[in-house]
Amino acid sequence: MSNESNSYKLTYFPIKALAEPIRFLLKYGEIEFEDFRLDVAQWPNVKDKMPFGQVPVLEMDGKMVHQSVAISRYLAKLTNLTGNNDLENLEIDAIVDTITDFRSKIAVFNTEKDDTRKEVLKDNLTKETIPYYLTRFDSITAANDGYLAIGRLTWADLYFVSLLDYCNGVLKKDIIAEYSNLVKLREKVLAIPSIKQWLLERPDSEY
Amino acid sequence: MSNESNSYKLTYFPIKALAEPIRFLLKYGEIEFEDFRLDVAQWPNVKDKMPFGQVPVLEMDGKMVHQSVAISRYLAKLTNLTGNNDLENLEIDAIVDTITDFRSKIAVFNTEKDDTRKEVLKDNLTKETIPYYLTRFDSITAANDGYLAIGRLTWADLYFVSLLDYCNGVLKKDIIAEYSNLVKLREKVLAIPSIKQWLLERPDSEY
Repeated sequence: MSNESNSYKLTYFPIKALAEPIRFLLKYGEIEFEDFRLDVAQWPNVKDKMPFGQVPVLEMDGKMVHQSVAISRYLAKLTNLTGNNDLENLEIDAIVDTITDFRSKIAVFNTEKDDTRKEVLKDNLTKETIPYYLTRFDSITAANDGYLAIGRLTWADLYFVSLLDYCNGVLKKDIIAEYSNLVKLREKVLAIPSIKQWLLERPDSEY
Repeated sequence: MSNESNSYKLTYFPIKALAEPIRFLLKYGEIEFEDFRLDVAQWPNVKDKMPFGQVPVLEMDGKMVHQSVAISRYLAKLTNLTGNNDLENLEIDAIVDTITDFRSKIAVFNTEKDDTRKEVLKDNLTKETIPYYLTRFDSITAANDGYLAIGRLTWADLYFVSLLDYCNGVLKKDIIAEYSNLVKLREKVLAIPSIKQWLLERPDSEY
């Protein structure tokens, strides 16, 4: 491991969502951290102290770092879940950013306040976006020996599986149920002992 | 340089937008590439051949790679515009993803079709989002010896400056005009000889 800090504090809302990839990676690496969960009532007081007014924020030895994907990539380096060379890391980064695109489309639906527009978004998601992305993620997993990139476990797999609870929670169904390679991938990731333990101990939340 | 390919072909629309960071980095590294610009009429035939139906796509020795930020990070490694260690790269990645968030908010406005909603989005951008982000980018640049991260030129600077044409084109004004540290940063990046040359030779486009 390189550049490791002595203390880690993760600040986020009391949900999985964008913080769960960070939690999965910290747990995978058996790195101790404070899992600080803000009450929504606390948020207005905390927001201004956060870089760009957003969470999750990871404090490492007191230094605040933001952006969940950047943090995840860093933790992946600490826990040996990155590629072996620049081209492998490019392959991982490309699928991670595609998973983020997919997750963002679900977030747009989740935060839409206009009922009519929300219905249209749900329809697009269900009939187009979700099958479009998941068919491709499933094929990619089949072509990569059961993983999302470079034929072995990487942080892309933890990133995807840890975000599924958010996607499924928003859509109120298991969106990958019909995609057998993704189901198997989830089983593998959730069977990693430290992740399995985390699922038993983590607080309940809608997503 | 590591993992360098022999041939590079970039496919995108005849605009700057998401491809311009890739073009800047290829030019910065003096890496020859085919700058293939699709007519909109060609797009329906090309879309299905592209990974996840999107461009920009960079072909490296014939292998297609997508996701502009992932590609930019890879090219930054080839051209020595990354950090010296994992923590420096985390700092760069975090600001890059924040620039992407900022650019995405401008893209949401740009693609909105409902006139009333578009007006609201423009108002939010002008009064809140743009000053919020640019004030912070400006302060960060002041605190980093005139750069967006780690006190020296990195791909975060090329990424930001190359996307400004898109942001300015959509908003029909120079959004950084009042932010002196960002103006100076842009001057520095655009004065790099290979970038300066690129600005003289690149095709005109609205953004």
